[in-house]
Amino acid sequence: MTILTALTPVLLVVLCLVIGFMLVKTQEAKTIKSSPGKSQDLGPMTQQDSRDDPETSPGVDEDCDYTDSIEDEEDHPQVPYSQPCYPEDVMLKRSRDFYTLLNQRRTIRFISSKPVPREIIDNIIRTAGTAPSGAHTEPWTFVVVSDAAVKHQIREIVEKEEMINYQQRMGYKWVKDLSKLRTNWIKQYLDDAPYLILIFRQTYGILPNGQKKTHYYSEISISISCGILLAALQNVGLVTVTSTPLNCGLQLRLLLKRPANEKLVMLLPLGYPASDATVPDLKRKPLEDMMVYI
Amino acid sequence: MTILTALTPVLLVVLCLVIGFMLVKTQEAKTIKSSPGKSQDLGPMTQQDSRDDPETSPGVDEDCDYTDSIEDEEDHPQVPYSQPCYPEDVMLKRSRDFYTLLNQRRTIRFISSKPVPREIIDNIIRTAGTAPSGAHTEPWTFVVVSDAAVKHQIREIVEKEEMINYQQRMGYKWVKDLSKLRTNWIKQYLDDAPYLILIFRQTYGILPNGQKKTHYYSEISISISCGILLAALQNVGLVTVTSTPLNCGLQLRLLLKRPANEKLVMLLPLGYPASDATVPDLKRKPLEDMMVYI
Repeated sequence: MTILTALTPVLLVVLCLVIGFMLVKTQEAKTIKSSPGKSQDLGPMTQQDSRDDPETSPGVDEDCDYTDSIEDEEDHPQVPYSQPCYPEDVMLKRSRDFYTLLNQRRTIRFISSKPVPREIIDNIIRTAGTAPSGAHTEPWTFVVVSDAAVKHQIREIVEKEEMINYQQRMGYKWVKDLSKLRTNWIKQYLDDAPYLILIFRQTYGILPNGQKKTHYYSEISISISCGILLAALQNVGLVTVTSTPLNCGLQLRLLLKRPANEKLVMLLPLGYPASDATVPDLKRKPLEDMMVYI
Repeated sequence: MTILTALTPVLLVVLCLVIGFMLVKTQEAKTIKSSPGKSQDLGPMTQQDSRDDPETSPGVDEDCDYTDSIEDEEDHPQVPYSQPCYPEDVMLKRSRDFYTLLNQRRTIRFISSKPVPREIIDNIIRTAGTAPSGAHTEPWTFVVVSDAAVKHQIREIVEKEEMINYQQRMGYKWVKDLSKLRTNWIKQYLDDAPYLILIFRQTYGILPNGQKKTHYYSEISISISCGILLAALQNVGLVTVTSTPLNCGLQLRLLLKRPANEKLVMLLPLGYPASDATVPDLKRKPLEDMMVYI
């Protein structure tokens, strides 16, 4: 009885501390989500405001390859800029032709094992590397694999995780047609394609003094680079599957001996389309369904 | 005394419930982070594994425009695929020329107000719309603004937030050179450029029956689309700044009357470069610094 009597105030105090801890943690979570800096008075902005903003690494720099950011220790002098300039009728024709070319691009899962000259791949990677990036950090590593044994190891890792994905992790609504699902995790193209490109994102860089270098907007930068890479592929008549392998990032990083600051983002098998390649009969949205003009 | 005695077991029970609730919430947070489905046995995977994986909306579908996913209620028949095929020497030349073209692309903050024919912009948007997307959801809305008053309103919103950003939200290391910073939040090009393109991401779609439609990998899809858009711009000799405006997503969404499921991702002013345009004297990484060959 006496013990019970003594326990009550103790339990009350413990309970208050636990509730207080929960409230603090909830508040921290909200704070981290809605602002990049230390203390933030967002004014009249509501929770919805922060949900409307890009969910990217918060960066000072809103321009992707904004280069004279104060983050750079040395100034970069400004130099005049010039590039090819076309008459309007030439611009119009070029814009039509480029659209025609890119509109033929499709995701192709049937890739020929016919070799592709290495120099073409080099030029495609160089082209991808011209993408803008946060504070010109160029946070990409393109791992190009042509070794058959390594390709096969990659295939095994990816297929195993995909199978687990479908069987264990997907919600019930996905387990409707097992035969159809089985096809989904077989990735023959990972063996067939003459090259696999694995795009790694450098989550941070290393400065000459050994300190970490922030890589702003690295996720956006990597994907923009991938878009340019796809255009470069289409330009030479090669095909790919733009895939983001789930749950095998670490295994692939270790297999390819990439450092801990690199995260696998995309896996693209490259090659000529197989002669019997097929695609789903899909249509793209017309302009009026994706553009609003003001 | 009697009340205190009676309270002890009650407080004990309440305390256990609160602690149990906290544990459940913590477990849910870990679960959501590491896998898309319901219950997940990740096997020997460690916390680092999940950090190695793409931080994108978890989707069943790892291929960006994987279209015959079980998510699609109707089957899409397979049709033969064909596209232009070039001899190797032509491929090589095309790859070199495309790299030369894209390597000239820079972020340009000095944009001429010279008008650009509307049809060219339409073709550029169509081209961006050829990007792959998760389960072929095409989760993009391109808002193209040429109205001078609306452009000015956009400029005011963006500049105000940028100024607050620099003054309040940046860490101390950013407040080194105020005069330099002041330049950073003045966006003259938002008034000068004949067009502003605001790319909105549809976080989810709406099915004919009114239900929500999941948009897998929408963040990656939008950025890939942006990469293709940048290539299309460079192809016709137009320039832009690839910017991701911070903290003004809601204001801009409301200004442009976009629905709640759309989030602003990027803002690109388009036009010819100004005759006196300059760029920082930067170099891009050589191939050996961004590519690993296996």
